[in-house]
Formats: sequence, structure tokens, C-alpha cells
Amino acid sequence: MTQAAAVSADIVLHNAFVVTMDGALTVLRDGAIAVVGDRIAAVGPSADVLGAFPGAAQTLNLAGRILLPGFVNTHVHTSQQLARGIADDVDLMTWLHGRIWPYESHMTEEDSYASTLLCGIELIRSGVTCFAEAGGQYVSEMARAVELLGLRACLTKSTMDCGDGLPPNWSSCSTDDCIQHIAEIPYENQFVMRMKKIDHGTVTYLEKIDFLRSNLLAAHSVWLNESEISHFSNAGVKVSHCPASAMRMLGFAPIREMLDSGVCVSLGTDGAPSNNRMSIVDEMYLASLINKGREAYISGTTNPTVLPSETVLTMATINGAKAVLWDNEIGSLEVGKKADLIVVNPFKWSMLPLHDCIANTVYCMRSENIESVMCNGQWIMKDQKIMNVNEEEVISSAVKRATALLVRAGINLPERMNYL
Amino acid sequence: MTQAAAVSADIVLHNAFVVTMDGALTVLRDGAIAVVGDRIAAVGPSADVLGAFPGAAQTLNLAGRILLPGFVNTHVHTSQQLARGIADDVDLMTWLHGRIWPYESHMTEEDSYASTLLCGIELIRSGVTCFAEAGGQYVSEMARAVELLGLRACLTKSTMDCGDGLPPNWSSCSTDDCIQHIAEIPYENQFVMRMKKIDHGTVTYLEKIDFLRSNLLAAHSVWLNESEISHFSNAGVKVSHCPASAMRMLGFAPIREMLDSGVCVSLGTDGAPSNNRMSIVDEMYLASLINKGREAYISGTTNPTVLPSETVLTMATINGAKAVLWDNEIGSLEVGKKADLIVVNPFKWSMLPLHDCIANTVYCMRSENIESVMCNGQWIMKDQKIMNVNEEEVISSAVKRATALLVRAGINLPERMNYL
Repeated sequence: MTQAAAVSADIVLHNAFVVTMDGALTVLRDGAIAVVGDRIAAVGPSADVLGAFPGAAQTLNLAGRILLPGFVNTHVHTSQQLARGIADDVDLMTWLHGRIWPYESHMTEEDSYASTLLCGIELIRSGVTCFAEAGGQYVSEMARAVELLGLRACLTKSTMDCGDGLPPNWSSCSTDDCIQHIAEIPYENQFVMRMKKIDHGTVTYLEKIDFLRSNLLAAHSVWLNESEISHFSNAGVKVSHCPASAMRMLGFAPIREMLDSGVCVSLGTDGAPSNNRMSIVDEMYLASLINKGREAYISGTTNPTVLPSETVLTMATINGAKAVLWDNEIGSLEVGKKADLIVVNPFKWSMLPLHDCIANTVYCMRSENIESVMCNGQWIMKDQKIMNVNEEEVISSAVKRATALLVRAGINLPERMNYL
Repeated sequence: MTQAAAVSADIVLHNAFVVTMDGALTVLRDGAIAVVGDRIAAVGPSADVLGAFPGAAQTLNLAGRILLPGFVNTHVHTSQQLARGIADDVDLMTWLHGRIWPYESHMTEEDSYASTLLCGIELIRSGVTCFAEAGGQYVSEMARAVELLGLRACLTKSTMDCGDGLPPNWSSCSTDDCIQHIAEIPYENQFVMRMKKIDHGTVTYLEKIDFLRSNLLAAHSVWLNESEISHFSNAGVKVSHCPASAMRMLGFAPIREMLDSGVCVSLGTDGAPSNNRMSIVDEMYLASLINKGREAYISGTTNPTVLPSETVLTMATINGAKAVLWDNEIGSLEVGKKADLIVVNPFKWSMLPLHDCIANTVYCMRSENIESVMCNGQWIMKDQKIMNVNEEEVISSAVKRATALLVRAGINLPERMNYL
């Protein structure tokens, strides 16, 4: 057992299948965790931890359930949650000019707050305890919602300095502030090659201007060549792989190659109008499938051994923590780290039989298997009840705001079928 | 309103968003359905149907929920449900020789019954009312389980007449009985070209021997060229597209091209060790994403307009019915057809806001949104309770059998992490 200095524990969770995601990828078949305040005070066999903390305020027998570090979602647009379903099955230009920009530019601060609350509920229900915002307009409203929900997040404002049809009030930031999405679409590379007189694309240019550093989190990273992957690797750049969004809009990112080169690749969902499920649970499943399938185009046949489940689980946890530069605090279940963890109930139709617990967690788990979520030592979902907000009220308010916002933005969706 | 001859209804479901999937793709915003015996007796506006069947035995107000035809899963290995997780992240030869053949050849009739029951629960929970079995050893046991669950199915025995390492008791069938999986892997085409002296692969050979008919359901159909797609189209061959299984093991099927040529493409999950989620709900999501992404390799950029939601919903319903040659009986909500339907509750975090009900059904719905399932006029799941079997007992028995079967077959899985 690993244990911090002796104090009395607030919570002891025992009789669990503990997947620590520590450096040795230690799994405890009958393991326990003690939480003191906001931190993990002990990880070890159940008997040892129970023995060391006899007077814990709360002792929970998890009856064989799986304990995992909370997932880290490294690419989320919380402001876009109210826009789920407004831009499906349309080309990229319609997506941007006809739907998302009108939507976002008609959004109020209160809309952003409601959107972040609704998004946060989906994040929590899919086991996320920490996320990286990819950018919206009202950061203080995001912060207000995130604080109320009890989540951990890196928040940011969305900035752009050029682009046809960009809402005028958005283009007031300097170029230096504006580079976040990297090598998203082939056109981007062509544009950068033409404008900056270089031989490949965004990443080559960023390397040239010495922008590639270990504190850069590059989203998508689809259209990279081999030498650009080396630039990422050498500089310690972190990548957010968003499989659903990439399949829909961008293309197949060279994830296996990046991992082979030692690049830290994490997982993200992107925003609701790009995905539409805001669930790292589904992204884990997709990441493995898509990257196995992608090999058919690289080598003529799929490779089912690519991105095995343990790698995918690493991407969703400790690599996510590295991507947001908090791997000394979160991303694994280790003594001294923040108590960010999830309880998974695998004893249901969706995950049984349990011959391979790690594989089933990646391939079979659905959000409905996630029972409880703790962030910073506090339950933010307990037995599938969201703890810090009234979920029904959040949903009701968000849906009303979403409808009103679409009317205000003048967005009318075509009917797909013959409505009577 | 469309209505059959006047009788008193057994069940009237009203105040629903009815997606009929009829020839005109009619959607009723405030619609109702009357069920008499095992068939649909009326479909129309709520007021009309309620007026026409005032003395219905049961009248349910669905409060705006979505009513859909039951999904048809056209490729299921019910016998493989106990093998979920035994063959993840391994190459095809290990999958077959080291895991699946030992598993299946050590299976008893009672194992097959338990496996089909467990599989059936997952099928029902994902909205399936009818499926096509892709082949196992004990058809009578499958039938016993399917009948008990109340599902509709086409069952079949698995047959093979050659293959290195094939269990000896399996190779006693004639070649004519053995062709079902078509153009699954590139090696298959190479093998057929060498053995049969033709210029492409399986489909070219099957065309030559006049095997391609409208009653052939071809699974996977990944490695087809343009002229082979024409052969399928001309002959009226039906295809079962299994996106998850294809991504993992086989490659990208030319689904857009097949649909453009008028081929009837339906959706399947394949078996649990190939997928591992046995859910048409997830396959709909995957089918749309994967085929949008595949265009990146065909045309240099993804095409988000390919396989729009209404097409995917068609594949999962009426095309499924056509694939099993029962489209005169199931696959749409129309008067005179069998009462096979599902009730979806979209008023939850996972599907809101509901700007585009059809898109959200394909992209956002999870199995947890499916509340009730009716097959042949009987509820087989009601308010998420499986009606005809004791779910806990089925699960408990299946898990015990699965463990014992692996021991008997001598299958030992390597540990993915450092287990203590």
C-alpha cells in the first residue's frame, strides 16, 4: 500500500477493481482508495487501506466495481451545446457561415451559462472530471457554470483574426492570440503555404516561428506529414484527437504515427454540432476502431492491434492530464494527487461477460455504466444523480434558450422528411 | 388517417412524434398508432386515431416521445455473446485460430441458449425487433431463446468447407451451402482469383456462377470494385453493412457508391467479439461518421453530406426489412404491417436540444433513450424492463457459462496491465 501521513480519511472506497493508470499501469483486483480533503491519501489492497483508516467518515464497499481516474476531455466547446443538431449533414461552409457563426454571434452571456451547464451534465455523465475549453465568447459565464457543477477546467476565449464572413466583433484580436486549431483541414495547409511561402503547412510554419513548445495543445492535427510529426515530438507539443469530429469534417489523423513518435495524444469530443455526442466514453470506442480501420489505407489492410485498449485508456486519462499540464495533480490514482475519480458498474448487460476488464471498459462501456463521479474530493454525481445543480431545471431552461436563440439568429433548418 | 376495418383496438399510442419510414417518409408531429392483435390497425393524427378507437383496451399518452419502427439488425452472431472481450486488439489469425474457433467448438447447446438470451437482451435494449443470425452451431437453441424473448429472427447454421485449422466437425457441408460472408478481406479475393481463374474476387465469381439473386444477403461487402457493385445492383442483392466490425477487422466498404447504385444496404452489428457493442443505435452513429470520413480517401476531403441521418434511419429500418425479405410485413409503421415498434424518450441530457429530431435520433440517441419495445403486438420491453425473461437470472447464468467455457476451451488472455 502507498499511503500519505496518517490522518483520518473522509472517504474510503474499497473492494474495487482499481485501474490506477500510474507509471507502472498498476491494477488492484481488490483495491481501495482513501480520500482526505481534496486528495488521495492512500491506494492499495482493500485490507491494508481499511486497516490504516479505521475511522473514515464514510466507507463504501464497491462490490467489485471499477475505479478509474476521471477522464480528461481536451477539446470541448461548452458554448455550442445549445446548437446540437443545427448543423448535421451539411458541408463545412454551411456549417460555419449558415449555422455556427450566426448561432454564436447571437448568443448572450446567459445563453453561454445555460449551454455550459447543459454541456457539463453530459461531461459528468460520461465520466469527465476535467476538460479543456476550446473557445467561446463568454469565459466568465463558462467559469460560473463550471464552478457550480464542481468540474475542473481550463477555459479560454475563442479568437480569430481572418476568415470570410467572420462576425465583425470577433476579429479584433492579434494574430499571436489566434492560433489554436492546427492542421485541421487541407485548405488550411494550402493557405499557409501560399501566404507564408513554406513547403508544407501550419505545423511547418509554426516550427519556423518557434511556436511549437511543450505548453501547446494542438487540436485535431489531421493533416500532418512525417517531418511535422517529428516537430511535434521534439517540441513536446500535446495533441487533442477528436475522432468523431475528425471523421465527420476533417479526416483521419495520423494517431498511430504520433504515438509511435512519442507525441502525447489525448482525447476530445469537440462541440455538440460537430460530434454530436459529448462523450469520452464513445470517443474511446471510436478512437480504437477508426485508427485500426485507417491502417487499411496505409498498408492495404486494417490492423486490429493498433491502439489497443490500454493505450486508449492512457489517452483518456494521464495523457489528458499531460495535455493540460496538470499531470502532477490529476490523470492517475496516486497518493498526493487530487481525488478525481469515477465508479463504473460493469455488472450489466452492456459490459458482460467480463473476460477482459480493460478491453470492456474501452469497447463496451456506455455512459449508463458510470455510476458516480468525484472531482476534487467531492461527489459531483452519485448513483447517477447530478449533485450540484437541479438537472431538470438546467435542461428546461437550456432548451427554451436554445429555441429562442435559433429564432434570433434566423436559423431555419430544412425538413428531412415529409412532416404532417 | 390510414385505418384498417373497424374493430376495437388492443393498444392506442398517441401524442407521439411518429416517424413512419413509409414510402413518402411521412412524419406525424402529433401522431398515434392503433394496434389490433399483432398488427397496426391505424396510423394518423392523434385526434383521428383516438376518435376511431374510443374503446381501446389500453391507451397510452406518449407525451411527445418518438415512435419508430423496430430496428432490423441484419448481421448477428448470437452464439458469440459469451465471447465478448476474448479477442480484442489481436490480429485476424489469432482472433480466429486462438480465440473464436476454440470458443465456438467447445460450446454446448446450453451455452448457445444462454448466449442467445444474453445477446437478445442487448438487441432489445438497443431497439431491435428483428435480426438475421449470421451463423452458429445450434440453431434450435437460438430459436428457443428468440421465441422466449419475443423477438423476430431469421436463424441459420454456420457452414464452412475449407480453411486452415477449421474444427474437423465443421467441414462436413457442401460448398453450395457455404457462401455467406462476401468480399470480407482482401485475401479472400486473392484466393478466389487464384482458385477460380477470374479477374477480381468473390463477387465476380458469384456473378459468373449465377449465384447473385435478390434473395442473397451479403455481409460486410468491403472489397468490391465498381463492376461488382453493378452486379449487386442488377441482381438486387442485399448488403449488411457492419461499420464497427469493418473498421476493426476488414476495411471501409463502398457504402455511398452502393447506395448511389441502388443497392439495398442495411445495418448489422456482427458478433460481440468483433464489435463489441451489439447496438444498432451505435452502428447508426458509426455508419454516418465512418462513411463521411471515408470520402477523405476517395476525394481528398471528408464529405459531411454523405449518408445523412434520414438515409441511415432508412438503412436501420425499411432496408433491414428488405434485406430479410419481410418488407411487406415490417420495417415501417403502416396499416396492415406487424406491430414492431419502439418508443424513444428524447427528453434527456443525451438528446437535447431537439432542433432536428431525425438527426438527433441518429447521432445523439443512446440505448438508454429507448424506453419500450413492441414486437408482434406485444411489449417485449416496457419502461426499460425486459418482459419475458428474468434479466438478472439470464445474466448470472450466462456469465458463469462464459467463464467455464473459456476454461474448457483453454483460452487464456494475456494481462494488459500490471495486475496486483
